Amino acid sequence: MVQGAQRETIDLAVSTVIFALRPAPDGGSPTLWIPLVRRIRQPYEGQWALPGGRLRYSESLAEAARRNLKETTDLEPKYLEQLYAFGDPERSPGDRVVSIVYWALVHAEQADRVAEGENVRWFVADELPDLAFDHNGIIDYALWRLRNKVEYSRIAHALLGETFTLSQLRSVHEAILRRSIDPANFRRQMEATGGLVATEAVVTGGRHRPPRLYRYDEDVDMADNGPLGPRAS
Amino acid sequence: MVQGAQRETIDLAVSTVIFALRPAPDGGSPTLWIPLVRRIRQPYEGQWALPGGRLRYSESLAEAARRNLKETTDLEPKYLEQLYAFGDPERSPGDRVVSIVYWALVHAEQADRVAEGENVRWFVADELPDLAFDHNGIIDYALWRLRNKVEYSRIAHALLGETFTLSQLRSVHEAILRRSIDPANFRRQMEATGGLVATEAVVTGGRHRPPRLYRYDEDVDMADNGPLGPRAS
Repeated sequence: MVQGAQRETIDLAVSTVIFALRPAPDGGSPTLWIPLVRRIRQPYEGQWALPGGRLRYSESLAEAARRNLKETTDLEPKYLEQLYAFGDPERSPGDRVVSIVYWALVHAEQADRVAEGENVRWFVADELPDLAFDHNGIIDYALWRLRNKVEYSRIAHALLGETFTLSQLRSVHEAILRRSIDPANFRRQMEATGGLVATEAVVTGGRHRPPRLYRYDEDVDMADNGPLGPRAS
Repeated sequence: MVQGAQRETIDLAVSTVIFALRPAPDGGSPTLWIPLVRRIRQPYEGQWALPGGRLRYSESLAEAARRNLKETTDLEPKYLEQLYAFGDPERSPGDRVVSIVYWALVHAEQADRVAEGENVRWFVADELPDLAFDHNGIIDYALWRLRNKVEYSRIAHALLGETFTLSQLRSVHEAILRRSIDPANFRRQMEATGGLVATEAVVTGGRHRPPRLYRYDEDVDMADNGPLGPRAS
């Protein structure tokens, strides 16, 4: 390891893995995508990396994550949760950086508004190039958490609107888990959790049996962050 | 908030919530206990706090947690996992400290070897005094994680020996969840997970139907830390 000549300061950064569901590159079924930013200085100059930056003295960890996302990608995610703190002494050549990483979900419409260019681009989450630092490993871990969590919580919500059909909800689960799910089994499973409420509304458009719209029951505890609740700083 | 006059450095600390099962204070059933250390300087001088300290330049986060535990309590936990990074700007009066918190489980026999004294003491986890900083809230969150995790993983293992009876395993679950569990339901639930292996051994002692000893099936993926695996740095 290269020891800093002038200092042995440990720097603290906050980065975020942002997921959105967008059509596959061939225009096909919904797929998980991640926005990355190109590094404009050493180390890893020119390589793609997670959006992030130094923690400022007077902001909380979640505030730092939101500020960085806004500055680099202009995204303001509805769902933002702390993922993990990565602190291997060798992870950043020449200095010591501990990165506290968040993960976020954004709607496809919001994702479409990101101005792609030389230094910001969306990538298919399972087909990434070699990224700067340990960011490939961080994204693997975020994908694992997302795939686990979709099974027992309502995070699919953050990828949909306020109301949705069971078919739309199922396609979110299918895209995240990358496997097809039997519609009847899915309906039974969702009804068993007790967290979905059928609204009076149906999808309009003149079909013979228009699909019903559902919403999540806000009275059911999300049990996502426990006593941390919405603080998450 | 008091702004540091000379500096706006953000300090990085690593602390650990350690759980052990020991008899209740009245000598009764197994109960969750936590060791705390008394602060010997400001802020919060004289108050109880989680064991922890500054991260050193060349150690990983998990190494810092293990070193601090060894130095303050002489404990070397079998199970150690990152809990959360706490970074509210107001959590430490007069400076800015981000604490990356781990949680650990130790066997009762190891817990018994901790030399209690003026500055180290075990407390019942659900009956704590007012602690320094935000440590009461951190412990609430660790208890929530432990109680969730015992339902879907094998962390009870870290509180037992290599082999154990179903009755011993059930009493660990009962102590963590603070409710009694029906023995027949518990047996069915454990058999359904497929992770327990009945050994050839039974508990000796001349009983008519000596209880069988079980162990965890090492071939079944623990699915605890995902792709992070044992690295956890």
